[in-house]
Amino acid sequence: MIDTIFNHRSIRKFKTEPINPDILNIILEAGIRASTTGNMQVYSIIVTTSKELKDKLWECHFKQDMVKTAPVILTFCADFNRFNKWCELREAKPGYNNFLSFMTGAIDALLAAQNIAIAAEAYGLGICYLGTAIYNAKEISEILEIPKNVVPITAIAMGYPSEIPPLTDRLPLEAVVHYEKYYDYDDDKINLLYSQKENLPFYQELVKLNNKKNLAQIFTDNRYKKEDNVLFSKKYLEFIKKQGFMNNE
Amino acid sequence: MIDTIFNHRSIRKFKTEPINPDILNIILEAGIRASTTGNMQVYSIIVTTSKELKDKLWECHFKQDMVKTAPVILTFCADFNRFNKWCELREAKPGYNNFLSFMTGAIDALLAAQNIAIAAEAYGLGICYLGTAIYNAKEISEILEIPKNVVPITAIAMGYPSEIPPLTDRLPLEAVVHYEKYYDYDDDKINLLYSQKENLPFYQELVKLNNKKNLAQIFTDNRYKKEDNVLFSKKYLEFIKKQGFMNNE
Repeated sequence: MIDTIFNHRSIRKFKTEPINPDILNIILEAGIRASTTGNMQVYSIIVTTSKELKDKLWECHFKQDMVKTAPVILTFCADFNRFNKWCELREAKPGYNNFLSFMTGAIDALLAAQNIAIAAEAYGLGICYLGTAIYNAKEISEILEIPKNVVPITAIAMGYPSEIPPLTDRLPLEAVVHYEKYYDYDDDKINLLYSQKENLPFYQELVKLNNKKNLAQIFTDNRYKKEDNVLFSKKYLEFIKKQGFMNNE
Repeated sequence: MIDTIFNHRSIRKFKTEPINPDILNIILEAGIRASTTGNMQVYSIIVTTSKELKDKLWECHFKQDMVKTAPVILTFCADFNRFNKWCELREAKPGYNNFLSFMTGAIDALLAAQNIAIAAEAYGLGICYLGTAIYNAKEISEILEIPKNVVPITAIAMGYPSEIPPLTDRLPLEAVVHYEKYYDYDDDKINLLYSQKENLPFYQELVKLNNKKNLAQIFTDNRYKKEDNVLFSKKYLEFIKKQGFMNNE
């Protein structure tokens, strides 16, 4: 079991073979066993397999090939639509049109997503998270007919792997874990924690290829640029508001 | 492996027995194997075991007993502090002081948290999520000396279980899962999806005990009230801003 977790690698190339519906069902059931705030289950999972819809989603996910080639795309959403409808049918007045409720739904959705990721891998499937679900949440919602009080949080491409990439490098555990309190980093510590990563031939090649001074600049100048972050921050916040989660007074 | 996921129940009563440090280490290593956006690992995990600190955290977590009695409290944070420091040391200009970056860190933190939850359970430990990490993120950050560019997202109480509660009920899978597109709910569907839950003797007793008309009112009037949601929405958003994640222009 623990081996499944330690063997995780993101899979971006899939066989055309569809996922057995019974297995997909068990994986989804594993998803809904995850902890959920107050057992409210304020999230939804959209399982998309149709070529037509995947082709449309592909545009939203920055045209990453795997969105077309994976047999299944799962879109995980914070969802108070179902819960609010239940409350209203029961003469209970829902007070969930605010940012805290958005976060509650987002947490629920992400814990279910990770259960599904692990369960899928336990069945020999491969997955890759699509962070782009946030970038183009608005367009994804139009395609998937997502109503008010529902916001996409993340997505997963899933299928049988047609590649076995090497395990991804990670910073040493001590970079991420703090004991008792937060232990802040001085320059020496940062240099130490990142040195192994910076010395990997793969990254050194990447830096050279992109004509950058170092790996950090690959992130700030190429992959996760300020102008994009600002643009998508505004866009996502506007969408969260439009969906009804920003009435905080 | 899949059994671990299907056997999850939140544990709120723990033995006094501390967690073996080697096992805790494997569990934390399992945490950092989770997917992370662009392999940036923009999150931190704070492992708190000291009685003094747990007593202080207990106040922040609405005085839930398990925060005092669990041998370990893990606080999961969105963290761009480490990444920004690295960028700045490398003459790379970080552009991560915005809401998108907050969400990126939150997603990273939550996927790692769920890996840790499952790994812990695979080793016979029990866990309970503490959603209150968001409610009092500010106070928790003071106690744990959390710096700017870091925000608590969730927390987990962990230890050897001294109870085996029954599995928690869940809505049927069809309540949470949509095929191809989002399939919106009409009144009949809502009634159908919630009927099994509403008929559970445990909830019916709870409704009677609280002098409410139905279970939905337990949520709206007692457990997750609008006034609290609004208060904690404002508080959390202010804190996210203070920590440096709301420069979206």
